Amino acid sequence: MVIIMQNGVTEEQIEQVVQRTHAAGLKTQTNVGEQCTVIAVIGDKTALSDTPIESMAGVARTMPISAPYKLASRQFHEENTVISVNGAKIGGKQLAMMAGPCAVENTEQIVRIAKHVVKSGAQFIRGGAFKPRTGPYSFQGYGEPALEMLATAREETGLRVVTEVMTPQEVGLVGKYADVFQLGTRNMQNFPLLREVGRHGKPVILKRGLSSTIEEWLLAAEYILSEGNPDVILCERGIRTYETHTRNTLDLNAVPAVKELSHLPIIVDPSHGTGIRSYVPAMAKAAVAAGADGLIIEVHHDPDNSMTGDGVQSLFPDQFNQLMQSLRQIATAVDREI
Amino acid sequence: MVIIMQNGVTEEQIEQVVQRTHAAGLKTQTNVGEQCTVIAVIGDKTALSDTPIESMAGVARTMPISAPYKLASRQFHEENTVISVNGAKIGGKQLAMMAGPCAVENTEQIVRIAKHVVKSGAQFIRGGAFKPRTGPYSFQGYGEPALEMLATAREETGLRVVTEVMTPQEVGLVGKYADVFQLGTRNMQNFPLLREVGRHGKPVILKRGLSSTIEEWLLAAEYILSEGNPDVILCERGIRTYETHTRNTLDLNAVPAVKELSHLPIIVDPSHGTGIRSYVPAMAKAAVAAGADGLIIEVHHDPDNSMTGDGVQSLFPDQFNQLMQSLRQIATAVDREI
Amino acid sequence: MVIIMQNGVTEEQIEQVVQRTHAAGLKTQTNVGEQCTVIAVIGDKTALSDTPIESMAGVARTMPISAPYKLASRQFHEENTVISVNGAKIGGKQLAMMAGPCAVENTEQIVRIAKHVVKSGAQFIRGGAFKPRTGPYSFQGYGEPALEMLATAREETGLRVVTEVMTPQEVGLVGKYADVFQLGTRNMQNFPLLREVGRHGKPVILKRGLSSTIEEWLLAAEYILSEGNPDVILCERGIRTYETHTRNTLDLNAVPAVKELSHLPIIVDPSHGTGIRSYVPAMAKAAVAAGADGLIIEVHHDPDNSMTGDGVQSLFPDQFNQLMQSLRQIATAVDREI
Amino acid sequence: MVIIMQNGVTEEQIEQVVQRTHAAGLKTQTNVGEQCTVIAVIGDKTALSDTPIESMAGVARTMPISAPYKLASRQFHEENTVISVNGAKIGGKQLAMMAGPCAVENTEQIVRIAKHVVKSGAQFIRGGAFKPRTGPYSFQGYGEPALEMLATAREETGLRVVTEVMTPQEVGLVGKYADVFQLGTRNMQNFPLLREVGRHGKPVILKRGLSSTIEEWLLAAEYILSEGNPDVILCERGIRTYETHTRNTLDLNAVPAVKELSHLPIIVDPSHGTGIRSYVPAMAKAAVAAGADGLIIEVHHDPDNSMTGDGVQSLFPDQFNQLMQSLRQIATAVDREI
Repeated sequence: MVIIMQNGVTEEQIEQVVQRTHAAGLKTQTNVGEQCTVIAVIGDKTALSDTPIESMAGVARTMPISAPYKLASRQFHEENTVISVNGAKIGGKQLAMMAGPCAVENTEQIVRIAKHVVKSGAQFIRGGAFKPRTGPYSFQGYGEPALEMLATAREETGLRVVTEVMTPQEVGLVGKYADVFQLGTRNMQNFPLLREVGRHGKPVILKRGLSSTIEEWLLAAEYILSEGNPDVILCERGIRTYETHTRNTLDLNAVPAVKELSHLPIIVDPSHGTGIRSYVPAMAKAAVAAGADGLIIEVHHDPDNSMTGDGVQSLFPDQFNQLMQSLRQIATAVDREI
Repeated sequence: MVIIMQNGVTEEQIEQVVQRTHAAGLKTQTNVGEQCTVIAVIGDKTALSDTPIESMAGVARTMPISAPYKLASRQFHEENTVISVNGAKIGGKQLAMMAGPCAVENTEQIVRIAKHVVKSGAQFIRGGAFKPRTGPYSFQGYGEPALEMLATAREETGLRVVTEVMTPQEVGLVGKYADVFQLGTRNMQNFPLLREVGRHGKPVILKRGLSSTIEEWLLAAEYILSEGNPDVILCERGIRTYETHTRNTLDLNAVPAVKELSHLPIIVDPSHGTGIRSYVPAMAKAAVAAGADGLIIEVHHDPDNSMTGDGVQSLFPDQFNQLMQSLRQIATAVDREI
Repeated sequence: MVIIMQNGVTEEQIEQVVQRTHAAGLKTQTNVGEQCTVIAVIGDKTALSDTPIESMAGVARTMPISAPYKLASRQFHEENTVISVNGAKIGGKQLAMMAGPCAVENTEQIVRIAKHVVKSGAQFIRGGAFKPRTGPYSFQGYGEPALEMLATAREETGLRVVTEVMTPQEVGLVGKYADVFQLGTRNMQNFPLLREVGRHGKPVILKRGLSSTIEEWLLAAEYILSEGNPDVILCERGIRTYETHTRNTLDLNAVPAVKELSHLPIIVDPSHGTGIRSYVPAMAKAAVAAGADGLIIEVHHDPDNSMTGDGVQSLFPDQFNQLMQSLRQIATAVDREI
Repeated sequence: MVIIMQNGVTEEQIEQVVQRTHAAGLKTQTNVGEQCTVIAVIGDKTALSDTPIESMAGVARTMPISAPYKLASRQFHEENTVISVNGAKIGGKQLAMMAGPCAVENTEQIVRIAKHVVKSGAQFIRGGAFKPRTGPYSFQGYGEPALEMLATAREETGLRVVTEVMTPQEVGLVGKYADVFQLGTRNMQNFPLLREVGRHGKPVILKRGLSSTIEEWLLAAEYILSEGNPDVILCERGIRTYETHTRNTLDLNAVPAVKELSHLPIIVDPSHGTGIRSYVPAMAKAAVAAGADGLIIEVHHDPDNSMTGDGVQSLFPDQFNQLMQSLRQIATAVDREI
């Protein structure tokens, strides 16, 4: 249930509604918007059956929320969420551009790539320190030393650091270095991890699960939001289908769908979404045209010798630079900026 | 196998190679390109094992074709195929825009919609006379009278007519009215129908099967091409996945994939690809940005009263008009025109 | 809508209800069961809004049918349908066992295999004369001569002939030789073909489409039933999923599902359902244990030299013989017979 | 790579090969089988390029393993793995039968159900204490108190306890109460959790991920095995496909596939595999007929009032009892026992 307050409601009136709801054993989250203030009631609303909320001062009306997510829904929060990360914004008019290698391999590598992509216009450097790998004998990332290399790249370029966290215990460690947490496709329903990044508070990129519905994805976001962290960025990265020509099927339908259902920003990963270098530019452009709030793209200066086998989907720095130029024109055509 | 001829090869030399191949019981198709002439050998190439093709005059080399399709492959035909339909081109710099209702309902309806969409810049009117319906009790289309209504709309607007044909027997009838045949998703592997439109000769829009791989789709195109009809337009219209929020999952990865593998034009149907009116504009723009050669979009002035239940995905004429304006800017950004 | 008649209803009363319904422009099908007589009303039931059917003599009540299929539904026809084919029954206590090669290659081959499988206990020989092939350059079957070879095999063994028909035009020709039509997975929604076998009248095995839902499959059956042919046998043959280790994913859930939703018999094809010879016996046993009414299995004495590449999934005659012995025990355990 | 030792190899010879391999920086696992001893080399085999392993005493030959899993492969370990849990065996001639409610709700509930299922012949009680739920507002399980209730049920019935663990940190806690860990479908690729249960050592039921290939599943098992825990039981529980009539598509093809590729036992969960109570018995029988080593089935005496909404797929105790009787006959038919 959400409680929609009247225009001109006072802080005191809001506080009274909140207290009354807490007294019934429920939690609340209050969203003060430009047009109206909405209080989301979290928990079993039948606990409120004896509480005449609608007759309280300042209350316009109450509304059941049919979607099983609340805080993530556009109904609860009408305006787009815009997330600030050291001056860069995600979800506003300007697109958020994130680029970098699959895995951090050494300081020279990550700094070199960071310098390339910042010159092309990226605001974020991505790179894996902890790598979830399908088999136990594959390279699993360098861990904390790789986080330090990312910090060095940040110092040298001013780029914000995006990197993956895989377990609740490592949230603290990764949080010391990352500006934005990345939750990978295999962890979209790792509920203890969702709760932990929810409690930690830094912005979180939540990649869509390999075969997750849009509703399950928004429910996973709800886990983070319900712990008090409002800064969730959804990332479409391709779903698993019967088609094997491409590594995954990039589901760009998810972009207008998320925009309709939710206020959260959505970015797109055309590298994993195709798995094929030569298809990345086309799908990056398509994502921006569809209304995505940003892109996360794999870039490597020597992909044939990268450590994870994902080199086949990495752009060369020159390709990335050229792509950024094309993207600027597409962005303009849909009233966005890079 | 393809036989690649030397630069400066003479027609006589080509003819001799062709005759030698025929003598071995095989069929050929010759493709005279700007840069080189290629002869595709169709059938079991082991029949040529005793024929020293490579030492014949004018032959540069022979090459096995690993893809199971030949005529549809970019290897066989390097330049993009451009198809002309009464002055409109499909596959060239200008995008082909097709619009109209799901089903032709009456003359007034189809003419009215045709006038709307021609004003907005469409070159083709689409509308179903024969409708493949999941259940036997649903409206199955008005048949030949509907074809006549389409012809009236053509006369009044100059639009070219795109309409579906469902059986080999009806190819002749539909061919009397249509400028372009449409083969629906359920008929992508209706092989006798593929052969029949291949023999008839008019351009064919071949919609991707609901769960067809890109390879199967190109093999279906190969059926048409191998009958001598080179004018096949592929149409991505969404595939079936586990996601139920949208009617289908529009697989725009297919656009760069087809462009790489084949020389045939590819258009996109964002109406069936999403099944939701409000998502159509975003995905139409994404398709153009991804490099599609055109779009086919459902437009209806009174979708709530349309006869097939597909009204929920039809744009209103005003929405289509507005979309066309946005598409022009996207087209410019990717060096195309509308 | 279905009209449920009272116990003890007279033929005259039934006739009056039928006439009244016809007068409203609707079609009917009457099903006289042991426990009750049901009249299915086919078409838009709003045409009956002014006809007080429920107050007519002999009518117990009317009932909307929520499933979009009617004649195929268990609600309309409570008892299992049992289909007789020259003395063999499909849908009764005894399981229907069908076996044979993918394609008919020559008389010696088909007669030899027929003799093997009849000895092992099969009642039906299967073999393709018209083969739907993904690519145009693959072997497409020998056509009518192959039908004659099947007839020879029937004469020599007494087995009933099951063979595929691909177009409405060929229904007459194939019907001269076949005891049971097979409609392949790619033709499950070839609606003109469904109607034509519906009009012809011989029993039809309707294979599930590669990515068809159970509801779409029953609606395809409804096309055949609605033309007056009650003898439809559903065949689960594997669906397309993301899993590539097996050729298809055999969906045995479909067996109890079809048994609940419909009265039609359902058989299972473990050969296409797995695509791997060594998995066929396990899945044949599983199908019988799940309640299937029969099996259709590929058997070839020289699969490595078969003409269609499906040899990898064909059992050797000895393996088939051994499997039949195991199946007898499973059948007994679920109160069936072979 | 695996090193296959000669018949009659001595322990000393084995030890020398192992030490030589370790000296090259690689890990090994030695499998002493009845017919031959095999040493699996774990890590990058190029480290052995200067080590003439094949000429060492006792070595028959070395063999690359093409499957990306080694310890899980049938090539490495020819005989079926049989796992003992307090006297019950999983993977031997006798089938392992596990039953119980989705979630542990209170002591009375779990003891009552345990008494029912032990009488019917089950050897394991299942029940969730920690529940992974799609949304944050759903019941998440009672945690440790529920583990204590399971222990009480064990004391009163002798049943072994199967329960889910969701995070690496909770492995110790759950391990104090569980006889067998269950890893749920969403955690199949939670690699830190796989490693932790690998180090802990108790048997682990590894449910197949919702859209995992068989290869990915065996690689997930390899994570556990590579930490030194050989007791992994695979559990097929249905995969996600386009079909929505059933909750999941139970992929019984996985049973013969796993039996061919691996030596690990495989059980089947027909409750989640169908999501529909009335389909569970058919699919339980099918699973046993296909060769599964056991079943895990939801049973609840009052499913309409269960706490997780999974009641719709739970059998009543009477239904479970009746099913067990049928299963005994199927088991006999495939040379197994219950």
